[in-house]
Amino acid sequence: MSSLYHECIELLKNRNVSLYDIAECVLLLQKPYYDDLTIEQCEEAVESTIRKREVQHAIITGINIDMACEEKKFYSKSIEEKILEDYSLYGVDEVLAYGICNLYGSIALTNFGYIDKTKPGIIGELNNDKKQCNTFLDDIVGAIAAAAASRLAHRK
Amino acid sequence: MSSLYHECIELLKNRNVSLYDIAECVLLLQKPYYDDLTIEQCEEAVESTIRKREVQHAIITGINIDMACEEKKFYSKSIEEKILEDYSLYGVDEVLAYGICNLYGSIALTNFGYIDKTKPGIIGELNNDKKQCNTFLDDIVGAIAAAAASRLAHRK
Amino acid sequence: MSSLYHECIELLKNRNVSLYDIAECVLLLQKPYYDDLTIEQCEEAVESTIRKREVQHAIITGINIDMACEEKKFYSKSIEEKILEDYSLYGVDEVLAYGICNLYGSIALTNFGYIDKTKPGIIGELNNDKKQCNTFLDDIVGAIAAAAASRLAHRK
Amino acid sequence: MSSLYHECIELLKNRNVSLYDIAECVLLLQKPYYDDLTIEQCEEAVESTIRKREVQHAIITGINIDMACEEKKFYSKSIEEKILEDYSLYGVDEVLAYGICNLYGSIALTNFGYIDKTKPGIIGELNNDKKQCNTFLDDIVGAIAAAAASRLAHRK
Repeated sequence: MSSLYHECIELLKNRNVSLYDIAECVLLLQKPYYDDLTIEQCEEAVESTIRKREVQHAIITGINIDMACEEKKFYSKSIEEKILEDYSLYGVDEVLAYGICNLYGSIALTNFGYIDKTKPGIIGELNNDKKQCNTFLDDIVGAIAAAAASRLAHRK
Repeated sequence: MSSLYHECIELLKNRNVSLYDIAECVLLLQKPYYDDLTIEQCEEAVESTIRKREVQHAIITGINIDMACEEKKFYSKSIEEKILEDYSLYGVDEVLAYGICNLYGSIALTNFGYIDKTKPGIIGELNNDKKQCNTFLDDIVGAIAAAAASRLAHRK
Repeated sequence: MSSLYHECIELLKNRNVSLYDIAECVLLLQKPYYDDLTIEQCEEAVESTIRKREVQHAIITGINIDMACEEKKFYSKSIEEKILEDYSLYGVDEVLAYGICNLYGSIALTNFGYIDKTKPGIIGELNNDKKQCNTFLDDIVGAIAAAAASRLAHRK
Repeated sequence: MSSLYHECIELLKNRNVSLYDIAECVLLLQKPYYDDLTIEQCEEAVESTIRKREVQHAIITGINIDMACEEKKFYSKSIEEKILEDYSLYGVDEVLAYGICNLYGSIALTNFGYIDKTKPGIIGELNNDKKQCNTFLDDIVGAIAAAAASRLAHRK
């Protein structure tokens, strides 16, 4: 397995997100359609999603933007402030998330929209967390969950 | 106003969808964010969305696919059947809907995902209607509502 | 292999497109980057692309729209005429093609844009063919080629 | 006009891109279709594109990523190095660019793919420039040109 994969897992952990947290979102999304879906199957689907190179690039880039803003390292303070406050009309974080979802087709996009509005589990926690900047992270986590759910739907 | 605009309004009406029905979905989506939003403002936003050429093309094409399948005019019965039963893994209807949402940015895409899962108002009615094929229509109506809601959000 | 796969191959053949034709486009796109790329590898990449369910749905739906318009089966003559003349501002055919490309990431989208402008090989032939309606077909073939090229780039 | 608009113009200038440079790309793209298109009309279309909030956010975010990497401010050196060398399989820069193009429909996406492969004018200069990191910037400039060209096509 590539070292970028392990870097993603580490980076997510440093920002307080475990694969299990993401798997819980997947279970929530897909449970209504498969009675016997297990958390283990969801975790496998999450791992498989993070094994894709384009997903890895999006994860690491997004988290690095959050961190750079937290540490006030962006040149343009206007955009740094919008990212830090998670300004509702700033949509570049969603654009990055769609870059992940698009790889998994239309079911992934629909799932993402639903997650983004309802903010289940870890997504809601990230959204309410005031200790770090999660503007890109919560959308990336939502996109991974939506993509993994779509993968399960297509492989049933 | 272009004749394609009027054709869209007529075609939607023939398939039992009024601008007011779509405006109600918009109100539902945006009311939580603006206390004083009126149904008239929502209807204006819907009209403005339908004035875009790419939206008009998507509306007319989608409804014509539904109608052609209803009348068993498609050459490939495999896909005609999937469209007629609104097969959950058939996603071309959502792809067409995203073609509308994309023009209105990331808020529109998120709204669409939410509408598509929760099926408020007219979307739910179309989804349950057994008298005609609404496979493309319900996604198109959802996309128009999501786009109009995004337009209102950006213009607040 | 699913019967939808074979249906796609048959349908493409009926519309005068072979896997070899599409593989030639892929070779043209990727040859500058890999000296030793063979037409066989390109054909395998094309086959693998057509094995994806969402790609199959897009292929069959797009070709059926072309055929329905050819046979004057669409209810709305306004849109039927635009499809028959391949009207330059009608973009639903490209929207369907992007539904394929998106599954293969950003390289696929860029490749598609290039193919769509330069119209190499079979794409140019389809575009100049006056005997049948290829409005959706030429974009679908371009999207399959772009997707297969992206697959090769990612697996090098 | 919003202050974000002026910030975009300034930021582009600081990175050696003028509105005139982008307008030249637009002229190149659209000239084959309109004999009498002027550079002034192209420049107006570029200005109008940059007046959209979502475009402004993408411009400022993208350039700030380039600058943060240049100044070695990213936490993850793996992704910083990929961005600094403009690694061909890193696609987040194109994802951001598509966020701009999508707002202008399918013609904009096709134009972008073509520009990204052929690298006319300023795009080629940015691509060959070794003095600063232009990984996100060249795609953003390409996307603005593609969007402006699409705007002209739709308004003819």
